[in-house]
Amino acid sequence: MTKRLPPAKRDDFGWFAGITLRWNDIDIFGHVNNARYYEFFDTTVVGFLHEADLGLGTGGAAMVVAENGCRFHREVKFTDTLEMGLRVEHIGTSSVRYGLAAFVNGESSAAADGYFIHVFVDPASKRPMPFSATVRNHLSSIQTDPA
Amino acid sequence: MTKRLPPAKRDDFGWFAGITLRWNDIDIFGHVNNARYYEFFDTTVVGFLHEADLGLGTGGAAMVVAENGCRFHREVKFTDTLEMGLRVEHIGTSSVRYGLAAFVNGESSAAADGYFIHVFVDPASKRPMPFSATVRNHLSSIQTDPA
Amino acid sequence: MTKRLPPAKRDDFGWFAGITLRWNDIDIFGHVNNARYYEFFDTTVVGFLHEADLGLGTGGAAMVVAENGCRFHREVKFTDTLEMGLRVEHIGTSSVRYGLAAFVNGESSAAADGYFIHVFVDPASKRPMPFSATVRNHLSSIQTDPA
Amino acid sequence: MTKRLPPAKRDDFGWFAGITLRWNDIDIFGHVNNARYYEFFDTTVVGFLHEADLGLGTGGAAMVVAENGCRFHREVKFTDTLEMGLRVEHIGTSSVRYGLAAFVNGESSAAADGYFIHVFVDPASKRPMPFSATVRNHLSSIQTDPA
Repeated sequence: MTKRLPPAKRDDFGWFAGITLRWNDIDIFGHVNNARYYEFFDTTVVGFLHEADLGLGTGGAAMVVAENGCRFHREVKFTDTLEMGLRVEHIGTSSVRYGLAAFVNGESSAAADGYFIHVFVDPASKRPMPFSATVRNHLSSIQTDPA
Repeated sequence: MTKRLPPAKRDDFGWFAGITLRWNDIDIFGHVNNARYYEFFDTTVVGFLHEADLGLGTGGAAMVVAENGCRFHREVKFTDTLEMGLRVEHIGTSSVRYGLAAFVNGESSAAADGYFIHVFVDPASKRPMPFSATVRNHLSSIQTDPA
Repeated sequence: MTKRLPPAKRDDFGWFAGITLRWNDIDIFGHVNNARYYEFFDTTVVGFLHEADLGLGTGGAAMVVAENGCRFHREVKFTDTLEMGLRVEHIGTSSVRYGLAAFVNGESSAAADGYFIHVFVDPASKRPMPFSATVRNHLSSIQTDPA
Repeated sequence: MTKRLPPAKRDDFGWFAGITLRWNDIDIFGHVNNARYYEFFDTTVVGFLHEADLGLGTGGAAMVVAENGCRFHREVKFTDTLEMGLRVEHIGTSSVRYGLAAFVNGESSAAADGYFIHVFVDPASKRPMPFSATVRNHLSSIQTDPA
């Protein structure tokens, strides 16, 4: 296995969403289960997209996740306070790569970090659909150069 | 089926917890799926118990859910703001009945309401364990007479 | 709290669905979390409805859960084998009450049992929509007199 | 974004687990939500580990997920039949990298595929703990050379 880069830093992200933890996020090991982080990813990305009133999921466009991944650096407990950081790392014609990270209790180093590639598709044909100018502008607003 | 009582009112609850909705709470019908309300119930109850630093789940005591139920009055959407109300309706020797309700966007009438019966058990034997005075006092602090 | 009736029996159900347990169903107490049983309920009911090719969720009709509830009798572990029993307890004009129970490892007495009230609605208006003859016949096929 | 490799093939996996889909796996777009695939990953890996009666999660050892990721190739619907393929790609001192893929309806090409890195840790200290010979043998039994 290749050498692992250090956890993402809070300063690397341009948009944040607070997410309340649920008792059911906690698994038998007493920490947030890995699958739940992908709920946080999904929620953060869609929350950001909804902020611009893009009419997603209601006819305008649909999004398909092409790929995602996460590295886990530190356990998160039920009583921790969670904030998700989001940035846009790459914008293509109809796909976008987001960087995401989970920050707990105001720490500057991520408890977990990952990425998420969205493809915008036509709701009927499910074929990739180029971003509208509105969507592209919204995505660009949090674009940062990847480390 | 018997006649249905009206939705619970915000004034009937003595403790509240804000819960952020997740994209994955939404099902094919575009609203929060019924099973997810029970995550809200669980989270609200445990959040209340944790508030008193009762050491639950870490050796002191464990809780088993004996029964729960929910009535759904109004759809909840991803962009809605959710607050859960909690009250204690009955305290027994080792079991407690909570009343719960989901309030969205500051409305006074519940989008959903239900109940939840917890039995406190010995972590090893799983046998019911009478409430300590600390737990009983904490539960009493939000006890209200059921309607 | 009122006296509790005994657990449901396997013989009381006319339709069954095997459901594989997931690691993430297990909570910090080492057993299936209560909220997950409602995923089993939902899945069982929709699985039964899909069996008749009723075109639900694809334009014909939508279902809204009006109410549900569950009693928990016995812990379920990750390595247990789960089978859900389903019966129809009451058929109204546009609503139906199902009885459900979770049976593990071939036991005749339920690990958990509950009910689930579905209202069929028009997908656009969300108003109750009387059952078609096809739906009514399908529901009747597993109707049993409640105990 | 780099060129994407083709989907994994069924023949590349040495161990399989059938997983029943749940109604709640389906999101607003009518397909299995991306976060749910990580429930399938977790369940498959733990199912494989349990097969050897390794006493995991009950004192012997605990597992922490260090990293995982998934590529999504094809939508999965509620009525699809899902089988997860598992292989071991690398065994270290206390960590193991699994390859996983989701196959639907007996297809030879994966609907989704990914990886999952587990670190075995001491339950108390949470420090990495070298694999026992029993664990190592069990992992080796499905080790394949990565493509």
